[in-house]
Amino acid sequence: MSLLTVGSVAFDAIETPFGKTDKIIGGAGTYIAIAASFFEKNQKICAVVGDDFPQSMLDLLASRHVDLTGLQIKQGEKSFFWSGKYHNDMNSRDTLVTELNVLEHFDPIIPESYQGVEFLMLGNLTPQVQRTVVERLNERPKLVAMDTMNFWMDIALDDLKQTLKVVDLLIINDEEARQLSGVSSLAKASKIIREMGPKYLIIKKGEHGALLFHGDNVFCAPGLPLEEVFDPTGAGDTFAGGFMGYLSSTGDVSFGNMKRAVIAGSALASFCVEKFGTEKLTEITQNDLEGRIQQFVSLANFEMTIQVG
Amino acid sequence: MSLLTVGSVAFDAIETPFGKTDKIIGGAGTYIAIAASFFEKNQKICAVVGDDFPQSMLDLLASRHVDLTGLQIKQGEKSFFWSGKYHNDMNSRDTLVTELNVLEHFDPIIPESYQGVEFLMLGNLTPQVQRTVVERLNERPKLVAMDTMNFWMDIALDDLKQTLKVVDLLIINDEEARQLSGVSSLAKASKIIREMGPKYLIIKKGEHGALLFHGDNVFCAPGLPLEEVFDPTGAGDTFAGGFMGYLSSTGDVSFGNMKRAVIAGSALASFCVEKFGTEKLTEITQNDLEGRIQQFVSLANFEMTIQVG
Repeated sequence: MSLLTVGSVAFDAIETPFGKTDKIIGGAGTYIAIAASFFEKNQKICAVVGDDFPQSMLDLLASRHVDLTGLQIKQGEKSFFWSGKYHNDMNSRDTLVTELNVLEHFDPIIPESYQGVEFLMLGNLTPQVQRTVVERLNERPKLVAMDTMNFWMDIALDDLKQTLKVVDLLIINDEEARQLSGVSSLAKASKIIREMGPKYLIIKKGEHGALLFHGDNVFCAPGLPLEEVFDPTGAGDTFAGGFMGYLSSTGDVSFGNMKRAVIAGSALASFCVEKFGTEKLTEITQNDLEGRIQQFVSLANFEMTIQVG
Repeated sequence: MSLLTVGSVAFDAIETPFGKTDKIIGGAGTYIAIAASFFEKNQKICAVVGDDFPQSMLDLLASRHVDLTGLQIKQGEKSFFWSGKYHNDMNSRDTLVTELNVLEHFDPIIPESYQGVEFLMLGNLTPQVQRTVVERLNERPKLVAMDTMNFWMDIALDDLKQTLKVVDLLIINDEEARQLSGVSSLAKASKIIREMGPKYLIIKKGEHGALLFHGDNVFCAPGLPLEEVFDPTGAGDTFAGGFMGYLSSTGDVSFGNMKRAVIAGSALASFCVEKFGTEKLTEITQNDLEGRIQQFVSLANFEMTIQVG
């Protein structure tokens, strides 16, 4: 099928206990598109960059079957830039710099050739921009997924709630799920959040894996125990990209297939954190990914015929 | 086969955000034996109580096929008593009272009829008492497992390390694994701890499930998302009891069977937290347990034929 991703294509500068980078390529849209490209060969992106964005990176996306017709290049303007520093435990970080630049007035243009797309992934952006994209599609996609973050819950909660009403699936982390629902039990939070709109919910728990909820079905994907997390930047976007790429490439939105998509996303995210930025994702082969998925199968799989007592 | 449990049989008084109890029955040995009784019908216990301990509770253990020959009743002395209060998040607690009483000079007596036991579970006690039990068995059991806690790491680390050398399996929580290994990555910690003696390691992660390590094998058991945790007291001991009861009843210490044992322990622990103390464990039927195990199967199970790209 086909997957349209809306998300930032940008620059990051990252500092972790293991080292620091200069300006490198980042952005939710970038991570999502690269991750999805392992599965989906028919991708489209809707984003905006300045004229400072390297052509080589756009070529890399194009070589991975990402249609760039909807990527606007603003002459005389600069790309979005984020800089952050991770604490020693890697679980928290400080934002050092956020320069919105071209994102400040981002008006998502949907080219005619994008109409009819079957899967839509709304990367973390203002809820209003996310909703605009859904409104500008003439046909409702088979599945609309969105990411968001605590920042929008703090400053644009009403707007966020409007957007939640028009999506099928929300992908957030455990802290965000607790903030959005106002309760600490994730089982309870999953019900409260799904009453806000999305039928499907994924709660990412970092090293503890991820939970997928739909109706009375719950799936708990394991986290792969890693000896070292080098840089967590983009892991959540990579998860979302792997998930949506798998789903879109199979065209199957059954709960059983969504479980597999969660594993696909988890496997790619486990690679993402091994090096700075998108570096590891652009190095690994399809074989590497298959091997990592097999690790997840071994990690979670057990056979149990129940005969107690 | 047969399972010998060494552990406290005692009184607890518990306060949680949901309420508080008077003195109720508690102790690691109690939880372990009750949990194991769902699987193993040939159990023995080695413990000590005062003459204040209710006969009705001893009768309950006996009715669950627990041989009490090795349970010493000290006339004129009082049973071990612990009192604690959980914080609102249920993840941390304050100890309000610890009265060692009969545990202060506990000398574990192994009756002749206990010799030849195939599985040994050393509940949380002083490392020296745990080691003494291993030394007093004429024949090495098929598997020796132990629990411990951060308290012994603080005040008796050398002694604990001596005991770790004589056991096959250590069952601890994530915080304890980090303290014992001195590293925060659980993948790294699992290697460091297994170099201290135990070939097998289980790291309990509370709501996030549990990890089982042996050689290069890792198994990640899911945590069942619960709407309410009423009282976490004894959940870890219940896990250990379910695990060892399952293992002992099947007599199979392969990695594949240990995975099933982890699920058995997880299912029982998920019941334990639903009411105060041992209450829920003594209410549920074999059918209830089978249903809960089936929930764990649905929660973790996925089928994935790998064909990337």
